[in-house]
Amino acid sequence: MTTPLAITAGEPAGVGPELCLKLAERETAEAMIVIGDADQLEQRARDIGSDVQIDVGGPTTGNGKLAVVHIAQAEPATPGTPLPANAAALLEGLRHAVKGCQNDTYSALVTGPLQKSVINDAGIPFSGHTEFLAELTGAPLPVMLLTAGELRVALASTHLPLRDVADYVTAERLQAVIEVLHQGLVSTFGIAEPSIHVCGLNPHAGEGGHLGIEDDNVIAPALKTLRQRGMHLNGPLPADTAFTPAAGHADAVLAMYHDQGLPVIKHAGFGRTVNVTLGLPIIRTSVDHGTALDIAGSGNADPGSLFAAIDLAQQMVGHR
Amino acid sequence: MTTPLAITAGEPAGVGPELCLKLAERETAEAMIVIGDADQLEQRARDIGSDVQIDVGGPTTGNGKLAVVHIAQAEPATPGTPLPANAAALLEGLRHAVKGCQNDTYSALVTGPLQKSVINDAGIPFSGHTEFLAELTGAPLPVMLLTAGELRVALASTHLPLRDVADYVTAERLQAVIEVLHQGLVSTFGIAEPSIHVCGLNPHAGEGGHLGIEDDNVIAPALKTLRQRGMHLNGPLPADTAFTPAAGHADAVLAMYHDQGLPVIKHAGFGRTVNVTLGLPIIRTSVDHGTALDIAGSGNADPGSLFAAIDLAQQMVGHR
Repeated sequence: MTTPLAITAGEPAGVGPELCLKLAERETAEAMIVIGDADQLEQRARDIGSDVQIDVGGPTTGNGKLAVVHIAQAEPATPGTPLPANAAALLEGLRHAVKGCQNDTYSALVTGPLQKSVINDAGIPFSGHTEFLAELTGAPLPVMLLTAGELRVALASTHLPLRDVADYVTAERLQAVIEVLHQGLVSTFGIAEPSIHVCGLNPHAGEGGHLGIEDDNVIAPALKTLRQRGMHLNGPLPADTAFTPAAGHADAVLAMYHDQGLPVIKHAGFGRTVNVTLGLPIIRTSVDHGTALDIAGSGNADPGSLFAAIDLAQQMVGHR
Repeated sequence: MTTPLAITAGEPAGVGPELCLKLAERETAEAMIVIGDADQLEQRARDIGSDVQIDVGGPTTGNGKLAVVHIAQAEPATPGTPLPANAAALLEGLRHAVKGCQNDTYSALVTGPLQKSVINDAGIPFSGHTEFLAELTGAPLPVMLLTAGELRVALASTHLPLRDVADYVTAERLQAVIEVLHQGLVSTFGIAEPSIHVCGLNPHAGEGGHLGIEDDNVIAPALKTLRQRGMHLNGPLPADTAFTPAAGHADAVLAMYHDQGLPVIKHAGFGRTVNVTLGLPIIRTSVDHGTALDIAGSGNADPGSLFAAIDLAQQMVGHR
């Protein structure tokens, strides 16, 4: 049997556990282990009327069985009501999964949604999955990439107030991001010579300095340096052109900031967008949605993004 | 016959004239007059092998005839090479069209693409069609709206360096923009009680202040004030949610800045996006593309956006 993927069930009061239950009935060739609290998963199966069998220590998920590595949480969780008391177990599950990816027990990590604020309420400093995984693995610069089919959008900056973006995107940082993105496209997407469209920072990519100087003074020189090393970089492009056929084909579009890139791909790929972290020593994909506390326990959550995240992780394992 | 639409052919060295020629062979019920240089239009017809007949002073366009109001330009223009000498005639054409819209000679204005830099090279201060039309008509706050089918995206700020956006979007300005947008949806789109999704300024709409304070301190109070006047406003929403089905239906999405909104609609509606200026005393739509100097004279330019701009202007006239 192939090395299994590790899938963390995420916040036990959210939709993560019930999305995982749906994996047991999906026909797939991938070996998969879910990391979470076995009792919580059994309870959620009862809640939604699922007859999936929780198989603690089992070899893989499928044929109505969910293979689970049991990480005991502190208290039972009611759908919709996350408990700070369970935060430690969630992070323990992530540590187990990462260690398993590093020692080849698992082939890759697929993460279910967490509730960041609840982890903070538990007194644990936590600014997100990505940052936590980067710290655990000693990765200096994780890069966020979203995929929806053939559209791939990466971000040069992520969770910053808008007014801080222009100063944050330095030539040095931009070059480092592009190097991680380029390397990730080569090594985990199997694209030998990736082409990347790079958005400008300002509207119309600054329009020759009339709408801001950073495109000419920061981005263009950074791209020039990297092109001299053989990278195929197109830009800085006006962001409202970069995502259209007028810009030509690219293997990825690099947006300078969160709301320049994510609205496009979430609109284009609603329900099937996958979040990938490049720049880690392990393969990690994630659902692109949150815990959806309002529908947790209803059994109605759409597993599309989780399925897509698993399929993409498996493809990335194949390219490695 | 109905009052004709006025269509300005735009920069004579660009694709505007040949897109207008294609109107003569389009089956449509609208009455249309093209404003431009008749000799230039005839020359372009020869360039692209079109047998459309230029009908100076004719009542309408159709059946192989292009009805033209002749505004003589200074020099013949070669496709691909805009001449500053012709800038004055272009602005004269716009003045004629606006006056005609104001005295009901024309029902609405549809503008072909201009080359802003060439007008500036002629020594004429000109920062864009929209600003010029606002000045001509004494409109205090034109608001840019793009449409692609049922998707409508308006902007709270337009052509500003990114680092200036956060300070530009004040509560007062935002309220004024929303009032123009709301009024425009009612009066020219025929939507009795429009609903508007309003994006946050920061990623995740500030995430409770963790990613910027403007969403809570500026946008939310402005929306509250307007809701008390009966407007249906949803937000501030994370921009990567606002354009998805998860946000529910809205008649328009208001983005806080250029690259938060335009990449989405240009990706979704490539080739059929129309630019509308709300807040003018006349109806004005525009192609969403530029002069495309590289393909001018080839006859290959896609008239999709011009046709869509004409159809939308006609619908707006019907709602007025």
